Amino acid sequence: MSDENDIIYGAHPVEEALKNPKRQFVKLTCTLNGAERLRALTQPLGITPEIVNPKVLDRKVEPDAVHQGMILEAKALRQPQLDEIEQSGVVVMLDQVTDPHNVGAILRSCAAFQVTAVVTTARHSAEASGVLFKAASGAYEHVPFVKVTNLARAMEELRDAGFRLVGLDSEAETVLGAIDKTPPLVLVLGAEGKGMRELTRKNCDVVAKLDFSGAIRSLNVSNAAAVALYALTR
Amino acid sequence: MSDENDIIYGAHPVEEALKNPKRQFVKLTCTLNGAERLRALTQPLGITPEIVNPKVLDRKVEPDAVHQGMILEAKALRQPQLDEIEQSGVVVMLDQVTDPHNVGAILRSCAAFQVTAVVTTARHSAEASGVLFKAASGAYEHVPFVKVTNLARAMEELRDAGFRLVGLDSEAETVLGAIDKTPPLVLVLGAEGKGMRELTRKNCDVVAKLDFSGAIRSLNVSNAAAVALYALTR
Repeated sequence: MSDENDIIYGAHPVEEALKNPKRQFVKLTCTLNGAERLRALTQPLGITPEIVNPKVLDRKVEPDAVHQGMILEAKALRQPQLDEIEQSGVVVMLDQVTDPHNVGAILRSCAAFQVTAVVTTARHSAEASGVLFKAASGAYEHVPFVKVTNLARAMEELRDAGFRLVGLDSEAETVLGAIDKTPPLVLVLGAEGKGMRELTRKNCDVVAKLDFSGAIRSLNVSNAAAVALYALTR
Repeated sequence: MSDENDIIYGAHPVEEALKNPKRQFVKLTCTLNGAERLRALTQPLGITPEIVNPKVLDRKVEPDAVHQGMILEAKALRQPQLDEIEQSGVVVMLDQVTDPHNVGAILRSCAAFQVTAVVTTARHSAEASGVLFKAASGAYEHVPFVKVTNLARAMEELRDAGFRLVGLDSEAETVLGAIDKTPPLVLVLGAEGKGMRELTRKNCDVVAKLDFSGAIRSLNVSNAAAVALYALTR
């Protein structure tokens, strides 16, 4: 399998990829059961899966990967440049969030909340990988995933395009529920533990916190993203 | 290390455990840096960490575990029985949620939202493990974690104690924001993928969904828990 291609496993990710008209498929490898489950999607596409023993699939992915009897190799999706995304709604920007489980879960929430795009740094961020696709549960096929080399410049570009930049920071004084929620907005989230980098924080128009009174006052970054999206979109 | 004891690693989990007056400590193993970071907590407790090479710690935990130079062995916390928890606020009930990362992240959110207790099934649920403690980021020390053998009976017991049982189900007709939020409430969450078991669903007083219009209409279970807690507690 080529490094250039996306390796997608698990029922939801593979199903959503097969339904994505922008995808070019290279190879589908399935167990008998996996092929059966996908038949309604593969038949109209004229795709014939290669049928293999489950153990063959086990060896193609990282240990403990829940492939559910299917691995799809497809050409990497062409992702838009920053100036190609819609200038409306909510954009989620991730400042060096590295855990692919978290980034995948965030993509899933972004699809549910109809986020315009997810923007991440090209370096020090989770790669688009099987783990991320699985955690995203198919959402990678629906949410533009934009990589930028310089986050500060991307923030400026979005501000110039009319977006207001809202950073989430558990140390902020303002509560997220209290800020102006009029779109277009960018929700900026920092890395687990470290939070936003200082420059990223400075480049926000407003920083706000989720207001917690409990013993632990910050959430897992994907949980924080989901709650913030809920708070900002209603 | 004994199977009976909790093996806790990572800065937040170890720090919160050291601050927990209910904890009995067996052994603290640290790198020099780890010991230094913990000194303000260990010194008043009269605990002297054993100083080891980072690689010694690596070998004591699962691969890729982020121990941050500290592993604490402590007696397992005594957890309350169901009839010992406060009969107020919001209880989170998990129906066979097996991923310790998800259960840990849920515990973390529960601490932030001041949830009364988390109730899980004794079988087919994530064990209280190092992975769970790490994902909970110290929250395990703050939220009662009740294991029950029979979830249906536990639901009945909580209903008799005055709780209303709210199941989260992406197929429900009612929207979570529209239901009566008066506590005491139980928020019932099903397993990733499968959702609540049929009997669990039947035993709820009301089932409700988070209302999504996007291409993907369900969230990761810990993300769903966080959003539902936000919606229910404000």
